[in-house]
Amino acid sequence: MLMGIVKGMVVSTQKDEHLIGTKLLIVQAVDSQHKPLRDEEVAVDAVGAGVGEYVLLCQGSSARNVFADPKMPVDLVVVGIIDKQPGD
Amino acid sequence: MLMGIVKGMVVSTQKDEHLIGTKLLIVQAVDSQHKPLRDEEVAVDAVGAGVGEYVLLCQGSSARNVFADPKMPVDLVVVGIIDKQPGD
Amino acid sequence: MLMGIVKGMVVSTQKDEHLIGTKLLIVQAVDSQHKPLRDEEVAVDAVGAGVGEYVLLCQGSSARNVFADPKMPVDLVVVGIIDKQPGD
Amino acid sequence: MLMGIVKGMVVSTQKDEHLIGTKLLIVQAVDSQHKPLRDEEVAVDAVGAGVGEYVLLCQGSSARNVFADPKMPVDLVVVGIIDKQPGD
Amino acid sequence: MLMGIVKGMVVSTQKDEHLIGTKLLIVQAVDSQHKPLRDEEVAVDAVGAGVGEYVLLCQGSSARNVFADPKMPVDLVVVGIIDKQPGD
Repeated sequence: MLMGIVKGMVVSTQKDEHLIGTKLLIVQAVDSQHKPLRDEEVAVDAVGAGVGEYVLLCQGSSARNVFADPKMPVDLVVVGIIDKQPGD
Repeated sequence: MLMGIVKGMVVSTQKDEHLIGTKLLIVQAVDSQHKPLRDEEVAVDAVGAGVGEYVLLCQGSSARNVFADPKMPVDLVVVGIIDKQPGD
Repeated sequence: MLMGIVKGMVVSTQKDEHLIGTKLLIVQAVDSQHKPLRDEEVAVDAVGAGVGEYVLLCQGSSARNVFADPKMPVDLVVVGIIDKQPGD
Repeated sequence: MLMGIVKGMVVSTQKDEHLIGTKLLIVQAVDSQHKPLRDEEVAVDAVGAGVGEYVLLCQGSSARNVFADPKMPVDLVVVGIIDKQPGD
Repeated sequence: MLMGIVKGMVVSTQKDEHLIGTKLLIVQAVDSQHKPLRDEEVAVDAVGAGVGEYVLLCQGSSARNVFADPKMPVDLVVVGIIDKQPGD
């Protein structure tokens, strides 16, 4: 998984039906010192995360597991909000 | 998922039978400021996207979920058209 | 998916039994201007592609879908031959 | 798989229910000379690894296989503690 | 898939039970000219490969297919030994 910061939201009216009702967050992966890593990506929120929060991201097919709908076309999901870790 | 811009189309007459009838789009991943990221890739369209549109891309095995045919050999799909986001 | 050029073939006599009879191609990913991207990889041919051809590549678990044998240990497959696209 | 060093832990109180009770480790991938590779990532521990230990990491959907719960949203797992290898 | 050279072995006594009895090889991906690509990774051997051999590597979930045990937490497997190819 990756650590990341939520930077904003994406609004998409015309989208796959399985994505209707999801919250799409723009996230920036960071290391334990909060240094930005990689490029911005879009993650589906599964824990009620908001802009500026420090989160835990799950990638790939495992990311689908947090949703009841197995047809969800998602490859990155916010699976936790990080409280505290060494770099804080 | 990734944000991207549709740059063109790919035409392939001789292809796997499960891809017949799909629209193959050349896409460029971008960040929220529309800055190009990574290299060009090819995505299958699932939402009626056209050249120049700003889209949401799903990668990997989850990308297959938007199609009725589970044998579709696809690893990148346009799953939404982005209306508006912070960098716009 | 990726666009690529077939550069050669790999011969492997001692291999996993599910790969027996496959054609293993060395491929170079390229963009729509045919500029090389990433490093060389090896793809299994599913469409009768030859050296020098411009092809469409599917990555990951979806790549297995084009073969009847679900135990095929492959992660990259040539799923189409590209006819024509913007950079040609 | 990757070789890595455990650098710390992540604490997340608000997380997906399938992650409750897991130990989340900050890991740094390294080569056989212990030289850092790639960026820090977060792995779920499956073998009782601690900070400073030299470990074996499994990525992607295969990483879920070590847990009894098939709904675990994990993409990186510590699957072994490395005893000894050429660079030691 | 990737071409690679076997550089050594990893010994891990304390590991996930599904990995017991496997041979863990340190591999370096290479191109057709044998030039090193990417960083070192660890692959499970499925074909009896030894140090110095030039091999074919399968990544991701497809890599699990070569083993009888579907719970194997592996993401990279040596699926063939390469005899000969253009750069040799």
